[in-house]
Amino acid sequence: MVVKLYGPTCASSKRALVCLIEKEVEFEVVPVDVSKGEHKDPEFLKLQPFGVVPVIQDGDYTLYESRAIMRYYAEKYKCQGTELLGKTIEERGIVEQWVEVEANNFDPWAYKLAIHVLFSSIIGITPDPKIIEESEANLSKVLDIYEERLSKSKYLGGDFFSLADISHLPFIDYIVNNMGREYLIKDRKNVSAWWDAISNRPSWKKVLELYRASI
Amino acid sequence: MVVKLYGPTCASSKRALVCLIEKEVEFEVVPVDVSKGEHKDPEFLKLQPFGVVPVIQDGDYTLYESRAIMRYYAEKYKCQGTELLGKTIEERGIVEQWVEVEANNFDPWAYKLAIHVLFSSIIGITPDPKIIEESEANLSKVLDIYEERLSKSKYLGGDFFSLADISHLPFIDYIVNNMGREYLIKDRKNVSAWWDAISNRPSWKKVLELYRASI
Repeated sequence: MVVKLYGPTCASSKRALVCLIEKEVEFEVVPVDVSKGEHKDPEFLKLQPFGVVPVIQDGDYTLYESRAIMRYYAEKYKCQGTELLGKTIEERGIVEQWVEVEANNFDPWAYKLAIHVLFSSIIGITPDPKIIEESEANLSKVLDIYEERLSKSKYLGGDFFSLADISHLPFIDYIVNNMGREYLIKDRKNVSAWWDAISNRPSWKKVLELYRASI
Repeated sequence: MVVKLYGPTCASSKRALVCLIEKEVEFEVVPVDVSKGEHKDPEFLKLQPFGVVPVIQDGDYTLYESRAIMRYYAEKYKCQGTELLGKTIEERGIVEQWVEVEANNFDPWAYKLAIHVLFSSIIGITPDPKIIEESEANLSKVLDIYEERLSKSKYLGGDFFSLADISHLPFIDYIVNNMGREYLIKDRKNVSAWWDAISNRPSWKKVLELYRASI
């Protein structure tokens, strides 16, 4: 059964896509044009009542929320493709901690920065220089803590690539390649080496090859 | 080895506490007085570099982020106490989906409402009626979707109590018992029955008995 992934072009969907590729799971994508409001269509809301992407359909199993989708496939195909949760319960604990750090400390500022620097015209808001400055300053502080963490382990969850790293790919890509804020990454030695390692993985290159044009 | 939990009085710490009680894990609490800024003390920052609670120390294993702590103990003590992740990978997927819904759809509005209605004087901000109105309206929409979900299953993750339910306890308690917004829960038949079921669990009563006074 081929997994269907709805709305592949958005940042959070790319988390799910990288995970599927790393786990060698066959999938097909179902376009959802957010700019046309297709994520609010009644048919789509039957799949995802909050009206956001991604959603997966795997036979008669439907699942949404990108980080929940990643966890599901990382666990379902534990012995296939790249191990993404660590080998022990303790390693998984640390992976989960950094998935949560991404969601609670990194994502809110990266999202605000992207909204005001990259997507303001698409969503019809006026970029707010104060929000841009605040987001950049807070991201700097968060990345200082990452720099310290990454002086002790090659990846965020430990010395192995994991869901914690995948979670960061879409927004750091925007920061480095689309928002002109690459200094946030490049000026930090360990963060920069980590970014080089995770962004050069064939799974991420494949996702960019498929969807870079659609940012 | 008794688990140490730092900063037991905050809302997110209560998630971890309920989980420890449900899993029958022995613990002791280490007070962290947020009002005195103890969460920003250098010694605390060595444990949790972002300066937030909770943190657990379990022997030489340190873990932070309340939802990561819950997952760790739910998995470590899979066969002890209440099963909180579901019995199958598919059930866990749905539990994780609703843990993420809590974090991404419910918590941002509940948190804003609590900040402006309940904690504004403690943290020294002027309550903003516009933010209060917006938060309440958005919570209403989110809870309409919960009402529909809970017409199909007794709990959020399925017909079993899980981490998805635990995640909601601290902020719904504020909404119902401290913020005078109980109508948000009580006016929705299924949400109200669900709240009765989860808030009457001995684990939650125990947490309130220990820490209600410290809100």
